[in-house]
Amino acid sequence: MQQIVECVPNFSEGRRQEVIDAIVAAIAAVPGTKVLDVQSDADHNRTVVTFVGEPEAALEGAFQGARQAAALIDLTVHRGEHPRMGATDVIPFIPVRGVSMEECVALARRLGQRIGDELALPVYLYAKAATRPERESLPAVRKGEFEGIRELIGSDPARTPDFGPRQMGPAGATAVGARPFLIAFNVYLNTADVEIAKKIAKTLRFSSGGLRYVQAMGVLVEGQAQVSMNLTDFRQTAMHTVLEMVRREAARYGAAVTRSELVGMLPQQALMDAACWYLQLDGFKPDQVLENRLMS
Amino acid sequence: MQQIVECVPNFSEGRRQEVIDAIVAAIAAVPGTKVLDVQSDADHNRTVVTFVGEPEAALEGAFQGARQAAALIDLTVHRGEHPRMGATDVIPFIPVRGVSMEECVALARRLGQRIGDELALPVYLYAKAATRPERESLPAVRKGEFEGIRELIGSDPARTPDFGPRQMGPAGATAVGARPFLIAFNVYLNTADVEIAKKIAKTLRFSSGGLRYVQAMGVLVEGQAQVSMNLTDFRQTAMHTVLEMVRREAARYGAAVTRSELVGMLPQQALMDAACWYLQLDGFKPDQVLENRLMS
Repeated sequence: MQQIVECVPNFSEGRRQEVIDAIVAAIAAVPGTKVLDVQSDADHNRTVVTFVGEPEAALEGAFQGARQAAALIDLTVHRGEHPRMGATDVIPFIPVRGVSMEECVALARRLGQRIGDELALPVYLYAKAATRPERESLPAVRKGEFEGIRELIGSDPARTPDFGPRQMGPAGATAVGARPFLIAFNVYLNTADVEIAKKIAKTLRFSSGGLRYVQAMGVLVEGQAQVSMNLTDFRQTAMHTVLEMVRREAARYGAAVTRSELVGMLPQQALMDAACWYLQLDGFKPDQVLENRLMS
Repeated sequence: MQQIVECVPNFSEGRRQEVIDAIVAAIAAVPGTKVLDVQSDADHNRTVVTFVGEPEAALEGAFQGARQAAALIDLTVHRGEHPRMGATDVIPFIPVRGVSMEECVALARRLGQRIGDELALPVYLYAKAATRPERESLPAVRKGEFEGIRELIGSDPARTPDFGPRQMGPAGATAVGARPFLIAFNVYLNTADVEIAKKIAKTLRFSSGGLRYVQAMGVLVEGQAQVSMNLTDFRQTAMHTVLEMVRREAARYGAAVTRSELVGMLPQQALMDAACWYLQLDGFKPDQVLENRLMS
């Protein structure tokens, strides 16, 4: 099976189009990368690039993007609403297909080493690639932002980077890591009573005793109550598990699911898992999907 | 989206491995074809090749296979248990992805024309490509087999081919057509009472008043009752529709579905349709599947 890694680097530039274009071009120029999405926000002064490739191409694409960003973005003059600490602020690798989390962690470490050595930038490993528990959280790593970290990096052992120098230049520092694919999954109910959606969300979400890889809130969208969720690891907490629990909770309040929606993209596996569960297809093999034979 | 057509030519040779190899090699040598399966049966003296490609590659692959078969197989000395009328007995085109049935019908007509003109073989269009209602059924087209058709083709207007000469040489005649993808779908029940599976099959199958694109029978497999089905057009009679009806009927007899299985391959679309139905994903677009962006 073809290996696919997704990489979603965030760059601290959302206003100068020529800079954004140069960074995206540097990524796209690496053979085997495919840029799927570029989202720039002027207020945040930040750009999120989504690209995919086989593991080596993803690593090289991320490195070339970071090199270009370091040459073009100066954090000493950067202003924007979104917290940031580097020209390339954060680079997560995300397993999509035929790749394990461990392989993505290894990619993150190799990329961190290269950015530290070749670009001479401080690198903090975060999320699944973190080398210290307190660095699993990106906000914790980025605490103090560029200006705060610049002051502490040389003296505070808690701020010692995993790779690169113990000092910050104008390109700042970069967080490099690996994390599961995040699915944005919204479920609509046949009621305008947002309180029902809020109660369901409370039962579902991890933070109040629910499912481990679910973030949830209840909102009103165009007069319809909606349970709005992020599934932060669909391989462990599956879409069908989540939807069936929403259905059961909704029934408790005399409500029902009218439809659901996925915001953005997701790996084929997430939908295949749902199809196999609902159809009770024990023993199904991915290479029974005809198209999968063509990608292998 | 990448266009994928499946083509499953049947050749009247299941014993001489060098002939089988030469035919498969002729198909595989066409750029853009991918041979997925070759099944030979010595008793039937017949080989079924499954290959895929974009429409033009599928057409060329089928033509090259037919040309090679016509050169190497002599129907005047062919003996086998399976009914047959030609060296290349039948060639169906099957839409898999990004291709309509109408496009496959057009492919069948173009291939029939080429086989008739360039190989000077009689060609009958069948299934969805049939030009007469009585030719929709392959057994009807093949009635009398090689020997019977050879006698009638020059005199009986009902046997006039769609393309090629009104006479049979040693390579016989070929049926060329288009049909939907066939899914072999078996559902197991938590009972050893095969009568329950037979009753469910009777309710499900088209021939006794059930769903239009379902063939079904009840069988006992290793002590477990099974509803064994062919779904002959999953785009019109969906897997989830079929499974939910089996579930409902089973409940009527106090039985339940323990698991189901797919025999062989199927297009991704069939499982996506099930996932979207069960997850109530109205408005889902295929390009939200990350892998689909890479195949486009």
